[in-house]
Amino acid sequence: MFNYLALAPILGVVGLVGSFLAFVALGRKSPGTDRMQSVAGLIRVGAMAFLYREYRILAVFVVLVGSLIAWKLGVPMAISFAAGAVCSILAGLFGMQAATLANSRTSEAARSGGLGAALTVAFTGGSVMGLAVAGLGLLGVGMLAIYFSGAENAVYLNGFAMGASSIALFARVGGGIYTKAADVGADLVGKVEAGIPEDDPRNPGVIADNVGDNVGDVAGMGADIFESFVGSMIATLAIAATLPAGALEQLSGSLSGEALRSSLMALPLVLSSVGMAASLLGIASVQALKSLGPAAALRYAAWLSAAIFLGGGYFVVQAMGVATGVFGAVVAGCLGGVAIGYITEYYTSMKPVRQIAEASRMGTATNIIEGLATGFRSCALPVLVICAAIFVAHELAGLYGIGVAAVGMLATVGITMSVDAYGPIADNAGGISEMCGLPEEVRRITDQLDSLGNTTAAMGKGFAIGSAALAALALFSAYTQALDSARAALGLDPVSILLNSAEVVIGLLLGGILPFLIAALTMKAVGRAAGKIIDEIRRQFREIAGLLEGREGVRPDAARCVDIATSAALKEMVLPGMVAVTAPVLVGFTLGPEALGGTLAGATVTGVLLALFMANAGGAWDNAKKSIEQGAVEGEGKGSEGHKASVVGDTVGDPFKDTSGPSMNILIKLMSIVALVIAPLIAV
Amino acid sequence: MFNYLALAPILGVVGLVGSFLAFVALGRKSPGTDRMQSVAGLIRVGAMAFLYREYRILAVFVVLVGSLIAWKLGVPMAISFAAGAVCSILAGLFGMQAATLANSRTSEAARSGGLGAALTVAFTGGSVMGLAVAGLGLLGVGMLAIYFSGAENAVYLNGFAMGASSIALFARVGGGIYTKAADVGADLVGKVEAGIPEDDPRNPGVIADNVGDNVGDVAGMGADIFESFVGSMIATLAIAATLPAGALEQLSGSLSGEALRSSLMALPLVLSSVGMAASLLGIASVQALKSLGPAAALRYAAWLSAAIFLGGGYFVVQAMGVATGVFGAVVAGCLGGVAIGYITEYYTSMKPVRQIAEASRMGTATNIIEGLATGFRSCALPVLVICAAIFVAHELAGLYGIGVAAVGMLATVGITMSVDAYGPIADNAGGISEMCGLPEEVRRITDQLDSLGNTTAAMGKGFAIGSAALAALALFSAYTQALDSARAALGLDPVSILLNSAEVVIGLLLGGILPFLIAALTMKAVGRAAGKIIDEIRRQFREIAGLLEGREGVRPDAARCVDIATSAALKEMVLPGMVAVTAPVLVGFTLGPEALGGTLAGATVTGVLLALFMANAGGAWDNAKKSIEQGAVEGEGKGSEGHKASVVGDTVGDPFKDTSGPSMNILIKLMSIVALVIAPLIAV
Repeated sequence: MFNYLALAPILGVVGLVGSFLAFVALGRKSPGTDRMQSVAGLIRVGAMAFLYREYRILAVFVVLVGSLIAWKLGVPMAISFAAGAVCSILAGLFGMQAATLANSRTSEAARSGGLGAALTVAFTGGSVMGLAVAGLGLLGVGMLAIYFSGAENAVYLNGFAMGASSIALFARVGGGIYTKAADVGADLVGKVEAGIPEDDPRNPGVIADNVGDNVGDVAGMGADIFESFVGSMIATLAIAATLPAGALEQLSGSLSGEALRSSLMALPLVLSSVGMAASLLGIASVQALKSLGPAAALRYAAWLSAAIFLGGGYFVVQAMGVATGVFGAVVAGCLGGVAIGYITEYYTSMKPVRQIAEASRMGTATNIIEGLATGFRSCALPVLVICAAIFVAHELAGLYGIGVAAVGMLATVGITMSVDAYGPIADNAGGISEMCGLPEEVRRITDQLDSLGNTTAAMGKGFAIGSAALAALALFSAYTQALDSARAALGLDPVSILLNSAEVVIGLLLGGILPFLIAALTMKAVGRAAGKIIDEIRRQFREIAGLLEGREGVRPDAARCVDIATSAALKEMVLPGMVAVTAPVLVGFTLGPEALGGTLAGATVTGVLLALFMANAGGAWDNAKKSIEQGAVEGEGKGSEGHKASVVGDTVGDPFKDTSGPSMNILIKLMSIVALVIAPLIAV
Repeated sequence: MFNYLALAPILGVVGLVGSFLAFVALGRKSPGTDRMQSVAGLIRVGAMAFLYREYRILAVFVVLVGSLIAWKLGVPMAISFAAGAVCSILAGLFGMQAATLANSRTSEAARSGGLGAALTVAFTGGSVMGLAVAGLGLLGVGMLAIYFSGAENAVYLNGFAMGASSIALFARVGGGIYTKAADVGADLVGKVEAGIPEDDPRNPGVIADNVGDNVGDVAGMGADIFESFVGSMIATLAIAATLPAGALEQLSGSLSGEALRSSLMALPLVLSSVGMAASLLGIASVQALKSLGPAAALRYAAWLSAAIFLGGGYFVVQAMGVATGVFGAVVAGCLGGVAIGYITEYYTSMKPVRQIAEASRMGTATNIIEGLATGFRSCALPVLVICAAIFVAHELAGLYGIGVAAVGMLATVGITMSVDAYGPIADNAGGISEMCGLPEEVRRITDQLDSLGNTTAAMGKGFAIGSAALAALALFSAYTQALDSARAALGLDPVSILLNSAEVVIGLLLGGILPFLIAALTMKAVGRAAGKIIDEIRRQFREIAGLLEGREGVRPDAARCVDIATSAALKEMVLPGMVAVTAPVLVGFTLGPEALGGTLAGATVTGVLLALFMANAGGAWDNAKKSIEQGAVEGEGKGSEGHKASVVGDTVGDPFKDTSGPSMNILIKLMSIVALVIAPLIAV
């Protein structure tokens, strides 16, 4: 089977080469005027400063937890953990470098080449991130899978997923707090108090705001998706490694026994390799499709990749001697991901948004109530899709099916992540055009790209939640199998996580609390961090003579705002991060493995629901405000009472959709992976 | 054992006699001036009209579902179902009669007798409801327990709980929609648009608003608590009836075998009888304690009842030959209820409220964000208390312990419900004083009583959620035992509701969706119903000449607003009600008993958390507004920008705390009881 498994690191390197070539191509584009370069430079320096300071804190965390792991679970596990952390960090760094190069180049392309050229540049920037995430994931997991080959060593791969997860948690939470604190601070003092436009160069907070788009939506999102990607591969591999003989044979195609097991262990990596190839073809096709317009180009490219992946996946499943039912599970996951994306689009851009915009006419309270109700309602369909995917996958291929469905959803991560990362680049390009006073028609192009970016971002969020849910359930399955396998090695009966046992119910309730607690902590953190930025912007407007009046040559001290946002976000990310990491350890060691199983299930249920609630309510509020600004509601427009109500809704939605909501994805995955890693220690 | 069991109907009758005597005493009080009687008359007529129209709809439901039950589960079950429904309806009618008599009499007592006299009247009115709820529960369950004696017939009692639950669902949802639609409508047009004070007699919506306090906070709350009370007794009895021999003997005191089983089956009823006696003594003590002030009088009376109950409970457990550990479980439940009440008080009146009030200074968005964060955070401690109670109860007395802990929490329902029902009476008394232009000092007294009523209402809501959670878990335990017992009768193995089975995970996710869906449905329902009332009040202000100017002799058409609110609320309650009733049936018959177990667990977890989130956020927003009005935030006061922000928060919180949040309590109990009733049909 070695041949197949080798595909993973090979395709991983191919992806990284693609990422590098995209990066080089990006560097060759014109960076624009001096002023544009200077603004872009400030953003890049700010974003990199945040990342480096964040990584310094995370280095301490990785060394501490790595030592603990080395002590309790052995050095190989610690090495795997460190590798996962390093790969996640590298993906974030590559993506951020590209994104902060691409923003001013997109503006410049819009200025000198028009819509098509600007799309190419922004998407090229995004694809550096997309291919880096997919490439590093494949390379890292692939090399470890070859190094730790054999079912008895598969357990060491769990460390890689945990390393990726740990970095993701802090990147998502820290980045999420940063981006919203800077956004709220800059808007509140600039737009509301001083009455100057968004992204006005006089506002000391706009650079921090643009930095925030990068650290939150590029680095944070990238780490989140990276984690889901490697987590789903590793969970599936772990399930295959510990599958009891009876369940194993039910997945038999042309192979059986331990050869079949090897095939099943390699399959998630091979499928992801196929997904990488499909992603590369999809990314290349955007160039050919761009004459259809940006929205159609990105959509058809993603569909093309999915179709190629499914075709290749079918071939691979057959060739590797695995039952065809396994391919059915892959299809269920892949289609489930697409469906959740479209459901998210519905709730954040269609009828529900119109209803919120209409409700804004009656006042702020009705805007808020309607938005909250929309968020609550929007949870049902995506969760039903997840249930359907689980049902089909499980019917066709048992627990292994749930894992491989998650792989199916995430295999074309190369292109989905590229589309995702395109959004904040377009957003930044708009900001740079505004700050540098580029002509109206340039801004129209960047606005058009940005508006598409909002749609892709909403769909990307839905996809991130859906894939996190499936990855968490796959990890949960791997956890229960790991317990049983550890106990079987000692001749003990399997663990029964019975819902009618008091420990499991207690675990379920405890787990259910955690997402609510993290939501509260992160929302309050945004409030505190925003308060500090507000104070600083007010101070600069007060103390820097001529700033607000726009006197020639007077510039705000943007770096100070960036620094304050960085310090505040990094400080605030620690407590929620620690809660998420320590909760499963505490429950596992005090209440036992059954209660921990309950905790994971409880956290997954409430975490997925809260994530959908918050992301969709936030997205819908945002677009309701935009639709009022575009005149969709009769008698309302910029500055009207209804518009003011919608601005409040948008502000409430900001931490919902960009901080607290996304934190849930990581919380549920990280808890499951921590449980999987400590399973051998608590199984008996 | 017959002697002990007979205590239940006897104490039930004693409670009803007490309720009747309180009602007679209330009727003897002076109803006030003609104007006060006329306003009170309008409220009474409106409230009764709502109840009668609601009950007409429910009669159809009861006949339909009763027939279905008679067909599928036999006539005795249907009779029991009808009896539960009738008892719940009677409790609502008695309580409402008393509350709508007590409101003007409380105003009058405040006018002619002062604070102490007003407290006596309001609390007497509340105690009619409290004793009716406890009395009808004891009488109904007690008589059925005697009629359907023996473990093999215990199953028929489940019908009684389901009948009570069905009525409670519609009463809570319908009443909740009514009260908030009328409140929001009257406030928005009256206070905000027309600029007239709250409860101003010119406002056509104020009568509907005052009717709403009765149908929501008296009848709805009463049905909710009645359901928890009978549900916890019946669940415990059902657990005792199906306890396997081994688990049975672990609860042995001086008895064993089937005599012990009879004792354990009778115990929840006997404990509740002791609780009734303790409640009567507590209610009587209020008169003696009232010189300490209203807050202390109610608090010490509740403590006294709890102490008497625990003393009597210890004696009863010993005398009935049951292990002392069972008493420990009773204590855990009783103390848990008290703790949850105080935690609720903290989040809705102390530091968190000050923080929301402070946040209002920065604007509406920060008020909303802070309130939501407070709500999220407030879930943790009450759920930890529930976990601790479950843990202790289960350690001491197994699954039976969880049931009997719920009984312990609810046994003194006679006094807790009296204190609860006191609140809306005081609120109504304030409204009548305002509408009838009574002197400033009268309003100061009613305001003082009303403000205490807000605290008792918040604590009552916490208690209602906590007891619903414990009752639902007890019912869930009864459900799993009922499955096993039905399967054992056919020689089949027990059902394993394993969290690592795909069906259970799917069930868990499906169950998790339901509270979010009900939250969305009920919030949107309030919005639609409020819209209709707003249109009508605007029409009256426009079309009735001289109304807004306050011309002598011009009265609004209050009855029309009452009628519109009634129709709208009754129409809107049907869909959420149907979802709650049909969901467990659908899951049970299509996906099977294991998936249904998952559904119950999922719904309970997210339902309890959402209920706490919504109730506490709503309560905290309400009190933040009040604290700004009382000058607690420097530089803010009635009419300031911060105050306006806090009014928005309060408006958002209204449907949270009085409609959607309370609906969760019923949802989780009703689903569990429906599952318990259909268990024999789906067990194999």
